[in-house]
Amino acid sequence: MLAASASLLNIKVVILDVGEHSPAKQILAPTDPKFTHIDGSFKDPEKILQLSEKVDVLTVEIEHVDVDILDKVAQSRRVQIHPSPSTIRVIQDKYNQKIHLQKAGIAVAEFLKIPEPTPEAVHAAMDKLGLPLMIKSRTLAYDGRGNFVLRHASEIEEALATLKDRPLYAEKWVKFEREIAVMVVRTVNGTVTSYPAVETVHKDNICLLTFAPLRSPDPATIENARRLAESAVLTFEGAGIFGVEMFQLLDGTLYVNEIAPRPHNSGHYTIEACETSQFENHLRAILNLPLGSTALKVPSSVMLNLIGGSNDMSQLTSFVGYALNVPGAAIHMYGKTECRGGRKMGHITIVGDSDAQVNDRLRPLLTQLPIPMSHEEIMKHAPHPPGSGALHDHPNPLVGVVMGSDSDLGVMIPAAKILDQFDIPYELTIVSAHRTPDRMVQYARSASARGLRVLIAGAGGAAHLPGMVAAMTALPVIGVPVKGSSLDGVDSLYSIVQMPRGIPVATVAINNSMNAGLLAIRILSAGIPRLVQAMESFLHKQEQEVLGKISRLQDIGWEEYEKQRMGSK
Amino acid sequence: MLAASASLLNIKVVILDVGEHSPAKQILAPTDPKFTHIDGSFKDPEKILQLSEKVDVLTVEIEHVDVDILDKVAQSRRVQIHPSPSTIRVIQDKYNQKIHLQKAGIAVAEFLKIPEPTPEAVHAAMDKLGLPLMIKSRTLAYDGRGNFVLRHASEIEEALATLKDRPLYAEKWVKFEREIAVMVVRTVNGTVTSYPAVETVHKDNICLLTFAPLRSPDPATIENARRLAESAVLTFEGAGIFGVEMFQLLDGTLYVNEIAPRPHNSGHYTIEACETSQFENHLRAILNLPLGSTALKVPSSVMLNLIGGSNDMSQLTSFVGYALNVPGAAIHMYGKTECRGGRKMGHITIVGDSDAQVNDRLRPLLTQLPIPMSHEEIMKHAPHPPGSGALHDHPNPLVGVVMGSDSDLGVMIPAAKILDQFDIPYELTIVSAHRTPDRMVQYARSASARGLRVLIAGAGGAAHLPGMVAAMTALPVIGVPVKGSSLDGVDSLYSIVQMPRGIPVATVAINNSMNAGLLAIRILSAGIPRLVQAMESFLHKQEQEVLGKISRLQDIGWEEYEKQRMGSK
Repeated sequence: MLAASASLLNIKVVILDVGEHSPAKQILAPTDPKFTHIDGSFKDPEKILQLSEKVDVLTVEIEHVDVDILDKVAQSRRVQIHPSPSTIRVIQDKYNQKIHLQKAGIAVAEFLKIPEPTPEAVHAAMDKLGLPLMIKSRTLAYDGRGNFVLRHASEIEEALATLKDRPLYAEKWVKFEREIAVMVVRTVNGTVTSYPAVETVHKDNICLLTFAPLRSPDPATIENARRLAESAVLTFEGAGIFGVEMFQLLDGTLYVNEIAPRPHNSGHYTIEACETSQFENHLRAILNLPLGSTALKVPSSVMLNLIGGSNDMSQLTSFVGYALNVPGAAIHMYGKTECRGGRKMGHITIVGDSDAQVNDRLRPLLTQLPIPMSHEEIMKHAPHPPGSGALHDHPNPLVGVVMGSDSDLGVMIPAAKILDQFDIPYELTIVSAHRTPDRMVQYARSASARGLRVLIAGAGGAAHLPGMVAAMTALPVIGVPVKGSSLDGVDSLYSIVQMPRGIPVATVAINNSMNAGLLAIRILSAGIPRLVQAMESFLHKQEQEVLGKISRLQDIGWEEYEKQRMGSK
Repeated sequence: MLAASASLLNIKVVILDVGEHSPAKQILAPTDPKFTHIDGSFKDPEKILQLSEKVDVLTVEIEHVDVDILDKVAQSRRVQIHPSPSTIRVIQDKYNQKIHLQKAGIAVAEFLKIPEPTPEAVHAAMDKLGLPLMIKSRTLAYDGRGNFVLRHASEIEEALATLKDRPLYAEKWVKFEREIAVMVVRTVNGTVTSYPAVETVHKDNICLLTFAPLRSPDPATIENARRLAESAVLTFEGAGIFGVEMFQLLDGTLYVNEIAPRPHNSGHYTIEACETSQFENHLRAILNLPLGSTALKVPSSVMLNLIGGSNDMSQLTSFVGYALNVPGAAIHMYGKTECRGGRKMGHITIVGDSDAQVNDRLRPLLTQLPIPMSHEEIMKHAPHPPGSGALHDHPNPLVGVVMGSDSDLGVMIPAAKILDQFDIPYELTIVSAHRTPDRMVQYARSASARGLRVLIAGAGGAAHLPGMVAAMTALPVIGVPVKGSSLDGVDSLYSIVQMPRGIPVATVAINNSMNAGLLAIRILSAGIPRLVQAMESFLHKQEQEVLGKISRLQDIGWEEYEKQRMGSK
């Protein structure tokens, strides 16, 4: 993917990798003998030297390289290396990486060195950090290889056998709410810019899904994750893109888990979903070119890794055939000739105009994975909307319909029916400004970060709900004045519409929640243009209905028409 | 670009083109000797035969191929050819193409065969079709080569000399309002799907810019263009993508100008702006795979061709260096080693959250083109917004602020000020429901097709404007009740808020147009998520202002505070 970005900018690239037809070499045919690729391992000092003689800037796509030779190259030659060898050295030893971050004041989970790979040393760590305990290889670990979850002291021997003779360290088990990742790009001058935070889902220690952007009931999380990731990357040297993986604990605390000094799987979504991909920005950073915009260009996206189920390539081929039917799904096959169980063979990025649409597009794919996924898992990552027509408790709502009391429900139902009719995911619930003020604050404050785009609030009498909600969200709030037993609803109307300067409520007619639903559709069309057509069809149908009445009135005369009209009441 | 799409799907491609390092070959290094590319001309029958022996499906990226040999291949081998040779044959002779379209009932400009390239024959055509007259080469014409605009009979000799001995035809000069193009993809089964219509801008007969989606004061144009393009492509045989170029006359009539049976320059924007690119859909179509979605995934985009200014490649390199500074600009260099004046060396696609943003991103690029563009041209294609702060007459407005009378202006100004403050392009004008009813209809009906996303309408007394506008657009309409000399504005409020079921108006408080402006920002945030943050900052600032007053009240006591407050009035 780095190679593809380079060729769009006419940047010449020489690849060091094993084999004549490794993936990057397939899409970079050298136009000149001096750019011929190198067949060899990225761990082979001779080959690294050979590469350094051919290029102006040297970068890595994997951190498990020979850093001693990079140091030597950096000292003796005019070639620039990004990120700097010192950064790669610190990061490639996970224990040193943690020490580095801890010293810099970056929040990480508790960890301890295991001085030697003996049962006693592991036991000592267990005594200090408790069970379960993560035993991790300090080096050469990726995609879960090199990790062992120790659940009981009796498993210590197994852990040591699994992790062989590698240098180890122990990490306190973190009970996390979810995993978050942020791509950060660092310029030659040491400034950093980050991409939007995403939620990652791992299965068997391998990244399976990345949802972008991150949704959160706590709006602060989204900015905090970016800030933490940027601070972490600021502590390293050299230019390039960095992937920062984090845990979020149940209380909202964020810990940095691991940093990758290179393009990262959790940033693949940027190719289709952002204004500049992580790959292009890595190139721009290491070549000291202006960075591209990291902004999202689509409302919602998800990345799904294509992980081999076995040696049988045809499983994968048939999955890809299936994926071709999913709208908005961009398939990236990596050109690997051999499939293996657990091997990343490619990925798919799905984009859509809302989380709900992305979710609907993802669900069928999860049912067809080469490594089958249980129904429960599928429902967790791509939950089904509730039964047909009733979208009132959708997992990815765009509209929140709230009312001050269940006595308002009858008046508010037409709004819900309109949302059902236009197939717009929503949630409908009771939030009372006066009786559940804390709930109201929490609801209003979290609405935008949860992915909602419009709120509809119905209230009667003093009717504070719409205005109070509007005061605590940046989203558009539609107010429905509900008619009470006295004053004919004028009290509610005045309460809702006469908002002070600074906080608007979009007020509709008394008891007319159907119009609130229709207004929500019109508002959503600012981000979902196909709703403009849908609303135009609705208006046309409405017109046709009245035209039908007109011709009937003409046909049967006013006397008969009025008789029938009264009869049908 | 076709090659890049193919490699993402692990589709093996063999290229026939001159040279060992032609652009497509640079990004398709064969992984097996049987996929070795062919060095030769696409006009060379031997080479075409050689290619046909290596592939299952054969396609073209240029229509000027030897069709006789394709016919032979189609008859004698198991290889499929898309689009079908018969289609290529008809299309590669522009006169036959026009005859074909005319017979099928597709609207084209008047045209005539010029039986032989003699002054007499041209004169005869001129007498029938008038001046100016397009003299066109029937074959081998592209990027304007092969066209001559005859403005006077005295130029006939020059025309014949320019077009040499090619077969010619004449086309009536079409005075067009603008040029429109639509990409259409045709499956093996003969069904068609189209991409959104775009506006194209040509300079010196070469496509320079493509704006997607098309904006139009006449909402019907957008659908009519798609329908005409689809009908035209339905008349041809074989699968694949087709580019349909059209003229729109001053009266709105659409004529098909030319059809390309292949990926087309006017579809390059689809790589960044649509859910599936034209290139991938061409592959899907010719391989009989399910087609991908043709929907736009971004609100707005423009494609700019990078056309060489001279043999000097450094001009281009410095332009690309400049373009790296433009956010949302994706650069596509084609890897051509030699630059020539008028040669397409690459292109740039700019995406953005609105036409205004795309326009602002495009403008600086137009000032730096290798072939300089005049200030007038730049202002035509990427007009400057009006002077600082005053966005009231923006060429790409997102919000329309209308009022029933100039006497409402004082009340409506705060809405405009809010839009200025949030840097939202808008237009502000007078539209009276009662005094200019036709203007109102025209304004409301065209609003969405012109790219507007929200309307704000202020009115007093009977206050019909907001509701009537809402009845004739699918966009959200915000109503501002303006207080008149009697009834304290309650008349306007009731008129605006008490809309019947089916047509909502988002009503704000009496005379409170500031809230209308703020509501418009909140509504726009449904499509421009950064506005959520901007609104949050606004709310925060508002809060700080009140907190400042609170602490001042505490500091100086209520007596002094009230004295100062009254004094400042």
